[in-house]
Amino acid sequence: MADNHTDVVVVGAGPAGLMVSLYLSELGVKHRIIDQLGTRALNGRADGFQVRTVEIWDSFDIATRIQSHGSHFGEWALWTPGEEGIARTSREAVFGEDSSRLSTATFHQGYIEAALIEGAQKRGGPLVERGVKFASVTIDPDTSNSSAYPIHLSVQHLREDELEKWGVNAHRKLEDGSLEPADADIEAFGTDPENIRWNGNQNTKQGTIETIHAKYVIGADGGHSAIRRQLGFKMDGANSDSVWGVIDIIPITDFPDIRRLCTILSKHGNILVIPREKGLIRIYVQLPDENPTTGPSSISLNNPNAPIEIFKTIQQIFRPYVIDYKVCDWWTVYKVGQRVSDHFSFNNQVFLIGDAVHTHTPKGGQGSNVSQQDAYNLAWKLAGVLHGQIKPSALSTFESERLPIARDLITLDTNLSRVLSTRSGVDMKDVKDVYARLKFFGSNVAFQYAPSSIVATQSNNDQVASKVIHGTRLSNAYVYNLSSSNRIASQALLKSTGSWYLFVLAGNLLHQPQLSLVNHTGTQLESLSKKYPHISARRPQDPFLRVLLFAANKLSDFVAKDLHSAFFPNHSNHGRDYDTIFGDQQADGSDALKPEYSRNLDGVHQVYGVDKEKGGMILVRPDQIVAWTGRLSDTDNLERFFAGVLGSGTDKSIVST
Amino acid sequence: MADNHTDVVVVGAGPAGLMVSLYLSELGVKHRIIDQLGTRALNGRADGFQVRTVEIWDSFDIATRIQSHGSHFGEWALWTPGEEGIARTSREAVFGEDSSRLSTATFHQGYIEAALIEGAQKRGGPLVERGVKFASVTIDPDTSNSSAYPIHLSVQHLREDELEKWGVNAHRKLEDGSLEPADADIEAFGTDPENIRWNGNQNTKQGTIETIHAKYVIGADGGHSAIRRQLGFKMDGANSDSVWGVIDIIPITDFPDIRRLCTILSKHGNILVIPREKGLIRIYVQLPDENPTTGPSSISLNNPNAPIEIFKTIQQIFRPYVIDYKVCDWWTVYKVGQRVSDHFSFNNQVFLIGDAVHTHTPKGGQGSNVSQQDAYNLAWKLAGVLHGQIKPSALSTFESERLPIARDLITLDTNLSRVLSTRSGVDMKDVKDVYARLKFFGSNVAFQYAPSSIVATQSNNDQVASKVIHGTRLSNAYVYNLSSSNRIASQALLKSTGSWYLFVLAGNLLHQPQLSLVNHTGTQLESLSKKYPHISARRPQDPFLRVLLFAANKLSDFVAKDLHSAFFPNHSNHGRDYDTIFGDQQADGSDALKPEYSRNLDGVHQVYGVDKEKGGMILVRPDQIVAWTGRLSDTDNLERFFAGVLGSGTDKSIVST
Repeated sequence: MADNHTDVVVVGAGPAGLMVSLYLSELGVKHRIIDQLGTRALNGRADGFQVRTVEIWDSFDIATRIQSHGSHFGEWALWTPGEEGIARTSREAVFGEDSSRLSTATFHQGYIEAALIEGAQKRGGPLVERGVKFASVTIDPDTSNSSAYPIHLSVQHLREDELEKWGVNAHRKLEDGSLEPADADIEAFGTDPENIRWNGNQNTKQGTIETIHAKYVIGADGGHSAIRRQLGFKMDGANSDSVWGVIDIIPITDFPDIRRLCTILSKHGNILVIPREKGLIRIYVQLPDENPTTGPSSISLNNPNAPIEIFKTIQQIFRPYVIDYKVCDWWTVYKVGQRVSDHFSFNNQVFLIGDAVHTHTPKGGQGSNVSQQDAYNLAWKLAGVLHGQIKPSALSTFESERLPIARDLITLDTNLSRVLSTRSGVDMKDVKDVYARLKFFGSNVAFQYAPSSIVATQSNNDQVASKVIHGTRLSNAYVYNLSSSNRIASQALLKSTGSWYLFVLAGNLLHQPQLSLVNHTGTQLESLSKKYPHISARRPQDPFLRVLLFAANKLSDFVAKDLHSAFFPNHSNHGRDYDTIFGDQQADGSDALKPEYSRNLDGVHQVYGVDKEKGGMILVRPDQIVAWTGRLSDTDNLERFFAGVLGSGTDKSIVST
Repeated sequence: MADNHTDVVVVGAGPAGLMVSLYLSELGVKHRIIDQLGTRALNGRADGFQVRTVEIWDSFDIATRIQSHGSHFGEWALWTPGEEGIARTSREAVFGEDSSRLSTATFHQGYIEAALIEGAQKRGGPLVERGVKFASVTIDPDTSNSSAYPIHLSVQHLREDELEKWGVNAHRKLEDGSLEPADADIEAFGTDPENIRWNGNQNTKQGTIETIHAKYVIGADGGHSAIRRQLGFKMDGANSDSVWGVIDIIPITDFPDIRRLCTILSKHGNILVIPREKGLIRIYVQLPDENPTTGPSSISLNNPNAPIEIFKTIQQIFRPYVIDYKVCDWWTVYKVGQRVSDHFSFNNQVFLIGDAVHTHTPKGGQGSNVSQQDAYNLAWKLAGVLHGQIKPSALSTFESERLPIARDLITLDTNLSRVLSTRSGVDMKDVKDVYARLKFFGSNVAFQYAPSSIVATQSNNDQVASKVIHGTRLSNAYVYNLSSSNRIASQALLKSTGSWYLFVLAGNLLHQPQLSLVNHTGTQLESLSKKYPHISARRPQDPFLRVLLFAANKLSDFVAKDLHSAFFPNHSNHGRDYDTIFGDQQADGSDALKPEYSRNLDGVHQVYGVDKEKGGMILVRPDQIVAWTGRLSDTDNLERFFAGVLGSGTDKSIVST
């Protein structure tokens, strides 16, 4: 096959595009990823990463690596106009923290890009092709009689002199208040130059136009998406843009909450403060559309002294507190409107994700999060269809699942702008309501995908798992591994390997009839798995369906050998899988573990609302979303669900690695 | 200066030598590190890392990176002879876990070496010079009139054909039971080839002898230490060696505790099972000194079929359970005796650390831990003396502090061998006693350094911090940062930067006289710091003394601006230091943080036994050891302590980086 044929082309190598590439690499999908810039993000840009995003990173084993470089903070403070300047109105736990086992983190976008690139590389994925610009896309019209590669993507391999430069925009403020250009702190792990910068010398296609023939294209090409514009999708929403100044500084200030997440409302404008890595803070400030004194042109990216103007506004807002800086790592100004595209996909062949289909203000700190979550929703579906593991009809769920989320995001951002407007006075109840919604947006607890081929309808009478809602991400409970006694987060078992997960909540195994029922379920599950041997797994340890058993017992109350072998698969070379059986409580005599664990934590049955005498099953998709729930005896029903989802397995386009 | 002059030469680049290099790099000390082998550890070797070691890694910010690759386990199980083969006698929390905020981890030695190398590199340290063998050392005899570089180290730069090969010893077991050589899983992060393998082409000194002139030499050259032998130190201890077989396999077994730490005693011999990374387990088995059937020669490193013999013994011990494998990542056999050197230093110019001065069986899993802790004890003292920051007399505390620990280790290992001997029958009380001691060895809670110039004498009447013992590592308490509200481990504040830490437990700041007392202490501390301006810090953020204030209050009950500025230093470019003031409890209204935090945790005053109405101070050395305690009014006493420790600051041999 000529090297201008590939299964998927990802256009844009920001966090959203790289997240697609990571998951496609994990799943062995042949793809290319191009970006018109010559480097990855070096500093600045998106910097707030919510707990749900961190959960997704963790499912690829990259969370600790990234998080250990970020700043964490426990509280969000709201400041409003007081008698003499601003005054603190409230402080509370930072949004989303209490609905996830993980913590938000802030750092410049380069860290997440570096980690996603490193993760894809470890999985045998392609290098980002930098300095390659999307030109146009055409699609063979007759899809019923389509060629194997119906999409033709024309891309331009830029010469070095054509590359748009990364705006580092770092400076030092001198004693006299003037600004001197300086180096930024662009350090991130993953410093392999190949992964950071364009290597023009290695690109023999430089200066030429290439046509790439593909099965699918993903447009992750940002707010000005050229793909979206070519497809003619319309951005619905606000009529006008707001203008924002952004600056990353090491603050010199007496403001007591500078290491907290702060929303500051004042008569002079509003500010969002985000504590960051290495002593930095990020300040977002909404600028007047027209600067009354000097006009808008003074606050422009083309004016190196614009930060002086921006910072004057910031200092006004902070009064009576004093703030200044000497070190600025990055700054920019930009216009943005609250808008969402009317379509997210063209014929389920070209998909758009991230800023390409939703733009909004930075107030909620959600942008890069929702974008990476778009990618996470899409990648496994695309891979599944390419591998023949799931039916092509599942692809339509990308738009049906993600477009409503984007609309919610825009609504939320609009509400946030409204309640934070000081013109109408700050109504604390309104503010708290919107922030509560924002909290559950960051944790994804607010997200529910509608019933579809991959989310079963849940009836109100269905009380098998009364606290589990179909179409939402599975919440977390702590369990103990039968083999090691390790305390483990149930969510951490949901690795992104392309497998579906079946949580078998076995109930009380000391009750003999219950044990028999569970083992009968094991027999049925074994036979179900055998019906889909044609759905090959990429690696032996990643079957299409991974069955995990949770007993409502102490570890000392049951042993693996009394359970059906469906619950502890054996591999001829690697022996038993030791990460499939869990209990709600530690063994007697082993309660001397860490004090944090000795609290009487709810077991997994309680957290998911499953009756300990009856048990139940929860099916989770490869993106940690609950697809189906049922009784232990409902294996037929489960099989019917899978019959509507699973593919023929005939197109095994799996890259061998 | 010619490049054959350097301040310190470290001989041996195992975990102990690399730990010295890491801390010397952090402290800007010019040094070289050589190793006669051509690679870092590729697989196998030391694999058990105790909680105290992980605390030390964490103080260099490398713990999460290493730990995320390791295996963790909550329980230790003891198996003893039963009626039909072995039977489980007890299971309990793994040793050391409950006395640290961190967890033990197991993985092959390559990971820790890679992480230590990476850490030293990030701090501007030297690359390991591989294929360089120690030949001899001479020291200018008249130290009173010594040259600046009185030690002359002769080293041999090996040619490639002279390099001893790393014994990878990985194999697959075939269906017929025969063994086939295979690749090992040598992957570890830090895959930069320069840090793993000898690069002979870049060593222009190949095949020559070089004389290196140094101020200090550290022998970290293992159990057969050539430096120790040249110095003529005597190894005291056991008359005979025991023979051990070691094998890293992916087990195929029905033994239920294979993912727990296990001690297995049987009539056929004893085994230690250690769960490891990537499904591996490590098995240590003590072999008969003379194999009764085939003689000892069959179980030798020179016999590629020795694993077959070793595994026969292992299978006998595991009965009635069945164990086998197909994948072996590493194996070896070795002889070891329980011995400790009579000296750890020669004239405080040449120091020996790690296996070079203490050897013992692997039963307690302490070897590499105590070795790295030797290194951690020594490095900052050496750097301090070289920089003129502390008096040279402090160097004698290396031997006086570490030699008793090594003797304790040997005693413990001897006791462990005794109580685990099945010949005399297993006395469970004895076993539990020894394991309790082992637990507190792994956490270092058992370690107390004697009074010296750097550990103040503690009188029995001294109840200022009644739960803090001079000469021990400071235990952990959770506190809340005043600036961010972040929950932070007090131990995690003790970064290894060469700074001493003064914990000012301020008591109840709502009590006005107490606030005045605290601020008076601040004045005194500021004047103390000003007396030692000649003791330069390497970096502005790392002063010789770092003062941290802990209030016995809620965060909402006090503000920074009411405190003396000694408690929140300002930097003209970087503003305030936000990591210096803490409170025992969260602010009102912010108790919605993670459920783990909502427990009524003891505050720092309670944990350290400090009266909340009076307060107190705890001085901690640059190696997290408590040096001194006193009342808030005892700043004169503190100053007298420092007068006995701190140097003239005249020899500022700090490498600028």
